[in-house]
Amino acid sequence: MQHSYRQIAEQLNQLIRTHQYQIGERLPSVRTFANQHHVSVSTVLRCYRYLESLGMIEARAKSGMYVADWTVRHSSILGEKSAQKIPSEMRVIEFDKLRSLQHRMTELYSLTDQPLELRLHLASAAPEWYPTKEMSKIAQTILRQCPEMLGEYPTGTGLAALKEQLVHWLATFSLDVQTSELLITNGSTEALSVALRAVAQAGDAIVVESPVYFGLLQVIENLGMKAIAVPCIEDQGMSMEALEYVLEHQTGLKAIVVMPNFQNPLGCTMPDKNKKHLLRLAEQYDLAVIEDDVFADLSPHYERPRPMKAWDKHGRVIYCGSCSKSMAPGFKVGWVAGGRHHAKIASLKLSHSLVTPLFEQAVLAEFMQTGALHAHLRKLRERLAANIPAATVALQTYFPLGTRLVSSAGGWWVWIALPQQIDALVLLRRAVAMGLSFTPGSLFSNSEKFSHYLRLNIAQPWGSDMESGMKLLGELVRELA
Amino acid sequence: MQHSYRQIAEQLNQLIRTHQYQIGERLPSVRTFANQHHVSVSTVLRCYRYLESLGMIEARAKSGMYVADWTVRHSSILGEKSAQKIPSEMRVIEFDKLRSLQHRMTELYSLTDQPLELRLHLASAAPEWYPTKEMSKIAQTILRQCPEMLGEYPTGTGLAALKEQLVHWLATFSLDVQTSELLITNGSTEALSVALRAVAQAGDAIVVESPVYFGLLQVIENLGMKAIAVPCIEDQGMSMEALEYVLEHQTGLKAIVVMPNFQNPLGCTMPDKNKKHLLRLAEQYDLAVIEDDVFADLSPHYERPRPMKAWDKHGRVIYCGSCSKSMAPGFKVGWVAGGRHHAKIASLKLSHSLVTPLFEQAVLAEFMQTGALHAHLRKLRERLAANIPAATVALQTYFPLGTRLVSSAGGWWVWIALPQQIDALVLLRRAVAMGLSFTPGSLFSNSEKFSHYLRLNIAQPWGSDMESGMKLLGELVRELA
Repeated sequence: MQHSYRQIAEQLNQLIRTHQYQIGERLPSVRTFANQHHVSVSTVLRCYRYLESLGMIEARAKSGMYVADWTVRHSSILGEKSAQKIPSEMRVIEFDKLRSLQHRMTELYSLTDQPLELRLHLASAAPEWYPTKEMSKIAQTILRQCPEMLGEYPTGTGLAALKEQLVHWLATFSLDVQTSELLITNGSTEALSVALRAVAQAGDAIVVESPVYFGLLQVIENLGMKAIAVPCIEDQGMSMEALEYVLEHQTGLKAIVVMPNFQNPLGCTMPDKNKKHLLRLAEQYDLAVIEDDVFADLSPHYERPRPMKAWDKHGRVIYCGSCSKSMAPGFKVGWVAGGRHHAKIASLKLSHSLVTPLFEQAVLAEFMQTGALHAHLRKLRERLAANIPAATVALQTYFPLGTRLVSSAGGWWVWIALPQQIDALVLLRRAVAMGLSFTPGSLFSNSEKFSHYLRLNIAQPWGSDMESGMKLLGELVRELA
Repeated sequence: MQHSYRQIAEQLNQLIRTHQYQIGERLPSVRTFANQHHVSVSTVLRCYRYLESLGMIEARAKSGMYVADWTVRHSSILGEKSAQKIPSEMRVIEFDKLRSLQHRMTELYSLTDQPLELRLHLASAAPEWYPTKEMSKIAQTILRQCPEMLGEYPTGTGLAALKEQLVHWLATFSLDVQTSELLITNGSTEALSVALRAVAQAGDAIVVESPVYFGLLQVIENLGMKAIAVPCIEDQGMSMEALEYVLEHQTGLKAIVVMPNFQNPLGCTMPDKNKKHLLRLAEQYDLAVIEDDVFADLSPHYERPRPMKAWDKHGRVIYCGSCSKSMAPGFKVGWVAGGRHHAKIASLKLSHSLVTPLFEQAVLAEFMQTGALHAHLRKLRERLAANIPAATVALQTYFPLGTRLVSSAGGWWVWIALPQQIDALVLLRRAVAMGLSFTPGSLFSNSEKFSHYLRLNIAQPWGSDMESGMKLLGELVRELA
């Protein structure tokens, strides 16, 4: 069989990562190994060479192959001084748990701990594409001038200076919000979570898009609520016809959670008339609307699309935003404009995690005040968009017929439909063994509807590693096709 | 009436803070005001002088008294450059809401936005008592060396380097925890919240101490659970006899939440035999134990008391800690060792707020690695203890007979029983009008049992302001007695 060296490599990799082969242990000689596995010597050689390239094993002169100290990561938070090890608790990925509503996000995150060459399973962009040096300078200045802030116990609903900057920023795309209805949270996920708790309780039903960001499904599951999936039209988001049907027939509904701009994973933007339509329906059925707008600043449109809340006259829309995609992924600072639900949301946020630390907020406020955000976002959007042609060509070149690029999501990720018979979870298992990760489609739904889809992050400089990654993935798809 | 100038000042203060007198508006002349309120000119003069000392009003030469720009705060996070204003949304305290289970913490926190001279309502120590300069230096070094970390999207369950430091630290007081069962959270309040959600759901009953930290009562209320209050013995914490009775008679119990060391507000430590006893009972009734250990590092005992989890052989205790009291109040970094509930807790934390930012974790890890924590804590404990004699004397001097100092909580705060007929909430209303805040006892219980108690923070350098604050409060108590 053509690719059996990869299958052997996958098995051996698993044995090493589960410590059945210890670090520093000698591996069988090529000949012994070949006999044990009934394969050719050249297959074993290719297998060993491949694992060597992954840093899992290493050759020692005149002595053979040994298991390398594959747990050492070279990029360390604290620099050379205390090189960070992959924690000894690193778990082997339980691929089947990726389907579980309670564990899909947990399992996906643990992919990040694996020794992979290409990590394309998260919706994150290259760190060097963010203004980290400017932010770091601002942060150092603040620390030098006000070290005592580290000793102050924060209270309130967020740093006033950041809220003021946000109010100005939101106004640039027609969102008229007062500082008094803004609450700073630990990222937009906390914003979503408290918003859901403010308008619904265990047992209630929540309308979501399909496909939809898997994190939302896990939040809803963990709150004991029920997600009602309304299909999306690929280039315009939630189908209004399907939504009307659901509203008419589904009982126990309390809210609609929606990403009208730059939907994850479709990357599409809802036409303004649909935004208004959805709002009218929410009014008619007396439902809360929770709007997740975290990607909209990166939307490839010339003009930043308006959030649904821009048309909200009755405080019905709970608007959630974040700096994690647009400004500083490491900060995890989010915000929520809760409309009529503000007081309840503020109480829930406080009782869940008190006040979000002020340091990051101070850095963001100062960065926004310099006026650098517009220019940074323009550059980031250009960089993202520049990858689209390369990714499109790579897909056409390496993937089998029957593969369809549904969306290139402004160059942030690609959302791909594989030939129908392929289970992207099976593909992921093989890809991870070969050092590459992505997000399988089944995570984006409670059904099996998207099991032959995948989301692949492309938001990093396109080089030979991306090219060979796409090639490898294409080959794995062909094997399964 | 002797103190009527204060009552008039209180009313006028209220009118200014609710913008019924605008900033810059001229106040009535002393004579006009005296006639309007049927008081003497000297009373009005004293009232104006008092409000002037609070910065609420100001005299202008030959023109009279005007409402000052009382919203400007002089201490700003961002330094002189963008002097922070008190947000325009500053709410007038709704004192009655302080009794509400859903709002007590929210309302108490909004006291911090008031123009007060002495804020003694939180359990926080003076910022200058923390090693903020050392931390700030470490933080600047990290930012200089690794600015790119601000651009990296964090994953995982916390920074490995911090977890390793914590494991070493916990071991110094007999707590044997692996990094694999540690999860870093947004403060210990998030730890408590996810711990509760991991072991119970809406409708379930949770055993808590009485009196107890009000934040816990709000968390439980907001999760739709029911707090069952078990009385404490003042110098040893939860009564074992009462607990046994409750366990025998109460249905729907899922967990016991307890602060065995340095209980808030009692400041007491549970004897080791009671810790073991409680554990045995939890075993017998198959309940989870959630241990809040945030103050124990500040305990005045020569040897740091052991947490209950030190005796836990079956992973039944969920242990929650934090840097907010001991190391860096501004960081809001907490941790939880979840025992057998770890996986569920990790899933809930992730789905609530993803991953806690790594920057603060890196700073803490580096600070702990320098070995400076022991010395810092010893100094902090000494500083705290040094205030106890002054506070005790002040209470004896200024407060009426029938006042009892229940606990001086290692110098962190005092827990005081006032004469029985005094409602501390009424006292608070008057005290706030005079520029001083504290925590009224009714917040520490769902019943009215502690309505004549109060908790008063004393964890700051004892100077003339503390002395005159205690004097003022003593006078207000006498008025009500």
